[in-house]
Parts: sequence; C-alpha cells; structure tokens
Amino acid sequence: MDTVETVTQFDKMLENLQRWLDAGLAFAERKKIEPDVLAASRLACDQHELVRQVQLACDQAKFAAAYLSGQKAPSHPDTEKTIGELRARIKACRTYVKSITPQQYAGAAERRVAPPWLNGRWMRGDHYLAQVAIPNFYFHVVTAYAILRHNGVELGKMDYVGPFPPLGES
Amino acid sequence: MDTVETVTQFDKMLENLQRWLDAGLAFAERKKIEPDVLAASRLACDQHELVRQVQLACDQAKFAAAYLSGQKAPSHPDTEKTIGELRARIKACRTYVKSITPQQYAGAAERRVAPPWLNGRWMRGDHYLAQVAIPNFYFHVVTAYAILRHNGVELGKMDYVGPFPPLGES
Repeated sequence: MDTVETVTQFDKMLENLQRWLDAGLAFAERKKIEPDVLAASRLACDQHELVRQVQLACDQAKFAAAYLSGQKAPSHPDTEKTIGELRARIKACRTYVKSITPQQYAGAAERRVAPPWLNGRWMRGDHYLAQVAIPNFYFHVVTAYAILRHNGVELGKMDYVGPFPPLGES
Repeated sequence: MDTVETVTQFDKMLENLQRWLDAGLAFAERKKIEPDVLAASRLACDQHELVRQVQLACDQAKFAAAYLSGQKAPSHPDTEKTIGELRARIKACRTYVKSITPQQYAGAAERRVAPPWLNGRWMRGDHYLAQVAIPNFYFHVVTAYAILRHNGVELGKMDYVGPFPPLGES
C-alpha cells in the first residue's frame, strides 16, 4: 500500500466531498429549506448525521497522515454545526495532509501505529492503512454522499469519483 | 499502492459484506417480512438497489484482480434477484480473487489498464487502483451497508470493519 498515493487520494476525495456539500447548499437554497436540516440528516437514528460524517472523514485522513509520518496530529475540535462551517474544517485537514512530504512517509509500512483506542497496543503501518484507515475513510465519505443523495441532492457517479487520472492513447 | 494487500482487503470486505447480508436475512425472518423487500431497497429512487450494489462491489474486486494481474476476468452474469442468491456470487468472486498469486501482480503499478469504458485509452495500474478501483469498491460496499442500516438491520462499526489485523504489545 503506497502511503503517499493513498493520502493524495484522500485529499482528492475531500475535494470531491466539498463539491457535494456545495451541491447540498445550492439544493437547499433552491428548495427554500434550511441547510441545517441537511446538516443534521442521518440514514438511521443510531448513525451519525452529515456534519459528523464529514468531521470523521477528515479525521481519518488527518490521523492516517500523522501516524504514518510519525507526527502528532493537529487538534481540530468538532465544533462545526452547519454545512457552511465544514468548509474550514475540510480546508484545514487538506492543508495539513498536503504539508507532509513524501520523504516523511519513509518506512511507513513497518511503522508501529498505536492510536489511543488500541490502549497501548499497536499494529503495523501497512495493516493500519489497508484495514483501518482506508475502509473507515471511505465509510464516512460514502455515508456523507448517501445522506445527500437520500435527501434528493442531485449527484452522480462522476461527482463521486472526481476527475480521472491521466489517460494514455493506445 | 500494494496490489496484493489491496486485493486481500477487498476479499476481507466481501466476507464482511456476506455477514451483513446474513444479518439482513435474520432481520427479515424475525420481523416476518419478505427478504426480497430488503433486496430491492435503495436509498434514492435513481440509485441502485441492494442486489445491484453487491453485484457491483464484486465486480470492482474481480476486475481489479484481473486487470492488475493481466488476466481476462471470468464472466458473472447479473442474474441474482435475492439476498440468498448473492451468496454464490460473492463466493465465486472471492474464489477468483484468491486464485491469483502475488507473483501474478508483479509490475501491476506500471501496467496499462484499459477497461472497455475507456474506449481504447488506458491508465496506469497504480492510478487505476487508487483512484478508480478502491473508491468504487468502497462506494458499493458502504452503500449496501447503508441500505441495510437504513432499513433497521442491526449492524455496527465493528461489523463494518471486521476482525483487526495482528496487534503488538508495547
């Protein structure tokens, strides 16, 4: 699992996520509904709402970048309540993720990753990335997308995937 | 992006997905509802239903394994209509994915991946894996999970993530 490529992809998905939220705001304006209704929407009563899904997606990207480059992650208190406020959160997360150089990820696969919730135990960096960071990051990103789609925001597969990588001609 | 590790993780998530579907069947039985109602459920009227999300998750894993090992993917016609029928589909997909040896993925990052929908153009294997296969695989897996959760099936984060990788003691 190449760490640099994965974190770069997290950043790309956060940029896509910002665009979906913009579409949600435009949708709310057009429908003359409070955007906060969307912000507080959830797919099940015991699942997190849109704002929290976005905060958690940011955290998965931030902690992956921090743990795998051997840094302490910056603190981003979960104070956002509205879709508008999430813009700054996504921006702060992306700025941090992009501040780490490829060299800082050297040896990431063998690094011991010991998040607080492992209570002093650790897992290898490559296991953490493939089996924890990537599935959890996409969990929150896709759930945020699903909440918007379920509420009628017009988004499609190309909004989800975002721009294609460079294509070659045969 | 390590291809072997990613495809192994896809296989793990498909195993988790089978358990969520089993929970869906048990839920339907307990509630005395037709399991086909769950199978045909969707989060938005212009989004695919549960059966199709599972078929597409399988396809993303299968095509990633095939393209990146330079093989032709086996054909799995989308004939499933019920949650019960998806069991065989998931099993066939996992059997294929596991049949490919790590050696067959040698050079996967630089391989030219030219799926039919690129109309003769191609992208590098590492770009395809990070920017197409992984986000699309998780899109369908998480959406399947979300459909089940939205309908009341009792699943939680540990069901989503599945078993932890090996942990070390500090």
